[in-house]
Order: sequence, then C-alpha cells, then structure tokens
Amino acid sequence: MTSARVAVWTDGGARVVDPTEPVVTALDLGLGRGDGCFESVLVTGGSTPQLAGHLTRLRRSAALMELAHPGDDAVRAVVGALVADWPGEVDGACRVFLTRGLGDGTPPTLLALLAPVPAETLRQRAQGVAVVTLTLGLAADVRAASPWLLGGAKTLSYAVNMAALREAHRRGADDVVFTSLEGQLLEGPTSTVVWAAGGRLHTPPPETGILAGTTQARLFAAAEADGWPTAVTPGTVADLHAADAVWLLSGIRGATAVVRLDGAQRGDAGLTPRVRELLAG
Amino acid sequence: MTSARVAVWTDGGARVVDPTEPVVTALDLGLGRGDGCFESVLVTGGSTPQLAGHLTRLRRSAALMELAHPGDDAVRAVVGALVADWPGEVDGACRVFLTRGLGDGTPPTLLALLAPVPAETLRQRAQGVAVVTLTLGLAADVRAASPWLLGGAKTLSYAVNMAALREAHRRGADDVVFTSLEGQLLEGPTSTVVWAAGGRLHTPPPETGILAGTTQARLFAAAEADGWPTAVTPGTVADLHAADAVWLLSGIRGATAVVRLDGAQRGDAGLTPRVRELLAG
Repeated sequence: MTSARVAVWTDGGARVVDPTEPVVTALDLGLGRGDGCFESVLVTGGSTPQLAGHLTRLRRSAALMELAHPGDDAVRAVVGALVADWPGEVDGACRVFLTRGLGDGTPPTLLALLAPVPAETLRQRAQGVAVVTLTLGLAADVRAASPWLLGGAKTLSYAVNMAALREAHRRGADDVVFTSLEGQLLEGPTSTVVWAAGGRLHTPPPETGILAGTTQARLFAAAEADGWPTAVTPGTVADLHAADAVWLLSGIRGATAVVRLDGAQRGDAGLTPRVRELLAG
Repeated sequence: MTSARVAVWTDGGARVVDPTEPVVTALDLGLGRGDGCFESVLVTGGSTPQLAGHLTRLRRSAALMELAHPGDDAVRAVVGALVADWPGEVDGACRVFLTRGLGDGTPPTLLALLAPVPAETLRQRAQGVAVVTLTLGLAADVRAASPWLLGGAKTLSYAVNMAALREAHRRGADDVVFTSLEGQLLEGPTSTVVWAAGGRLHTPPPETGILAGTTQARLFAAAEADGWPTAVTPGTVADLHAADAVWLLSGIRGATAVVRLDGAQRGDAGLTPRVRELLAG
C-alpha cells in the first residue's frame, strides 16, 4: 500500500515532510476559519496531466477570496515534490491547500497532500453512483449578485458538503446533487453535474455560483470538437430523470455514471464509454 | 504585550505548546474540509466565567455534525492549561477547536488558542460599530428542514463569514447583519442580533438556523428577572432602523451598540449601560 505524502512551501521551496508531522499552527486561518481554497489534482501514470486547469482555478478561488497567491511555480513545486517518485501504476489524489496563513498580510500557507485514490472512489468510478438531491437552501441567482457568498470559489469551508454526503449515506446513497431553493440543478458536493438529452450534453450555468468544473470544461471542449453539441442549461431534477444519461464529473473520479437518482434506477444509454474516450482524449 | 498560547489534547492530557509550533497535520479534516466546530470563550480576571454555556454549545455543534466529542473535561483541561497563569488584567479570547481528525472514526482533534482580545475589538466594544446588512442567500425556513445545512452548528467553515466582514470593511463599516432571502434578520458573522423596541428586547428565532447566542441567552434571562420583557421576533432591517437600540452580542465583545446601520446613524436611547449591567450580573 502506497502511503500518503505531504509537502509544504517554506522559504521559497518545497519541503517534503512525514505525513504524521503537524504542518499548520493553531493560529492558521485555514484551520480556524476554513479561510482558504484548495484543488484536488489527479495523479495518474506518475504525472498530473490536468494540472494546468487546477492552477487556473486555484488562482481564481484565491482572487475571489482576496487571498495572496504565491504563484503557479510554488504550487507546481509542492505538487512536483510529491509526484516525483510516485509509482506510475497507482492513481493518486493530490490536494493542494492555500490558506490565509495568520492573516493581516502575513504570507499564505501552501501545502500539498498526495494519497492513493480511495478504493471506494475507484468502485464508484467503475460501477456508478446512487445519488440523492438535496437543497442547498440558496436562490439560484443570489450568489452572482453577492460576492461575499464566494460563489465560484473552491473554499476550505466544506462542512456542509461533508454533511450532505453523510445525509446521502444515511439514505443509502453514495452522493448528492444540490438544488437551489427553486429546484434548479446546482452541483455535487465535490463534482459537476452533466446530463445527455436531445442529442446534447448539458451542465448548469456557472452564474448559479457553482464551481467551474475542470473536467466538465475538458469534456465539453472535446465533445464539441467531436460533433457532440453542448449547452449550459438551467435544468431541474425532472430533467435528470428524463435524461439519456447523467454523470458526476470530477478530476479524481472522472465521469461517474449516476445509476440511481432519488431511489429510481436509471441507465446511461451506453454513453459513458464515449464520454470517457473524450476525456481520455 | 501578552502573547498567544496554545494547548493540544493528546493521550488524555492537555499539552501546552509554542504557538509557532504546527499542531495539525495535512490530513486533518478540520484543515482540509473546515470539518469541525469551535467556541470563542472570554477570559477575564484570569478566569472563564461563561465557560459552561460554551461547553454546552460545543457539544451541540458536535452532535449536529456527528462529530466525536472527547468530553467536557477534556475541553476544560485544554482551556484551563492556557488560563492558569494568564494575567488577570488582560482580557483574552480563548478559541477551542474540535475537528473530525483524520476521519473514519479516528479520534477528533481538540486544541485551544488563547490570545489577548484585539485592540480593534476593544475599540468596537467601547465606541460601537457601523454595520451593513448583507443577504446570506438562504430562505429563513430552509435550515430547520435541512439538517445537512448545519443550522445551529458553529462550524469551522467560516469563509463566507470572513468574506462578509471584508465586504463590510470595503463599504466603510465594521460588521454585518445577515438577512435571509426574504429580508428576515438572521445574525452577525460572529454575533447575535438583539434590539430594543416597544419596551422589550428582541432577537431572531433560532429556527432560522442561526446560532443560539450564549451572551444573548444570559442577557435575556437577566432582563426577564429584572422586569424587562424579552421576545423571539422574526424582524426585518426596517425593525432595526425603528428600534430604540440595536446590539451585536458575542462572548468576546459583550453587548456592542450598533451606531450606524446601512449608512444611517442611530442611537441606543441610553440603554447600553443597563444591558451591560445585566450581563455583568
């Protein structure tokens, strides 16, 4: 079993530390206030083929949170220090954390954590997921007009995302699709929702405050190039029930088919292999 | 200048550590997911007179988050280790953090951080605060019916609370009162809203998902005993403008008068000293 690895950014360099070694002080606002952002980067074949998209989104999250960013090279350095001799046959999830440090203009805290993709995630990727829809309690249009709600930022404040996953497990499901107060589709706690209907691929509008999915962006670009039209569509749960296929997309899990939705079995019309081919590009 | 102190709960005991020493690993879910809860306890006269109320609320937050709690004695031990020789003349803020640790049933992480109350907080307590109202984007009734939204839990996922304070500063104000989508009063990012009107003290209903304020509870009990009736009232911003006085209540700041609300100056009808006397009990 390959074990976890950790690297911290210190004095302008990446330092690899034992994963059982504490790396953050009690004064760090990432710990005390969830005041930071993160990315989860897939490590496969001993490299990080999608790192560029994550670097861009981390910069965007930091900007939305007015967080100092130490530069892409620093992020590349902490990730690179962990990936360097990672076994090529083990898929890994590399989490990059950027926090506000001690605040008041002190340097941010940057660190990375690399661990094998959990067996349960691999099972979901292979077999699909049972999903429940849960309200996020927010109006679909409020985050676009209220920047302090941090729509579009992948923050460390994921307590509600984690509680939603516990609620899904309680209901015998694996994962969640959040909806707005009006019943509009938003996103999963750690994924983007994509569905196939009417000969198109659809995903909800980013104006709802959801994250811009790096895997969804790659899929849509590849699909368009392959003659499969795509659309940004404000859908509802009924649209998911009526769709030919529904997937949760994330960097680590790739395109995972939704095989049960609020208790109803559903198929993928045989489309999942094509979606995966497009992502494998 | 008295400097910060940190204690961690390890092997059944409180260990005081240098505040610059890292205490949390990269694998801790409190850091990576904001998956934990906290309390801010006032240290005054060398002791923590309101600790009991915070212990109760920390247990409640942990229960709402299905988080293992190491017991009140453990919390008392980490707090006590820091307060023991704290100078009686310095008011301190003692933050207690309880996180899910490494997850999967591993022990929780418990630690405490004690630092002098910041000068800016003391200024606000003395001079009052300018407040802006900002939407939290949520319907007032949704959290009561949606436990995964963690209404009533004081979680470590405070990124939005911190962003709201930055928005207040951008607008030339000190603090925030969040409102629901419908314009109902909720709470401050780190405080409870109380207003005086019609011979009563009012505060918004906990069913909106706001935190049960420990200072508000003490004030209302003391006011009732003193013949000042209290009410739980679903108010609006207009009610605050029309009120005789408005306060933000928190354990650290006590009752802080709102002296400007969305740009309009407002008074306290001379009521703040009585409120403070009741809290000093």
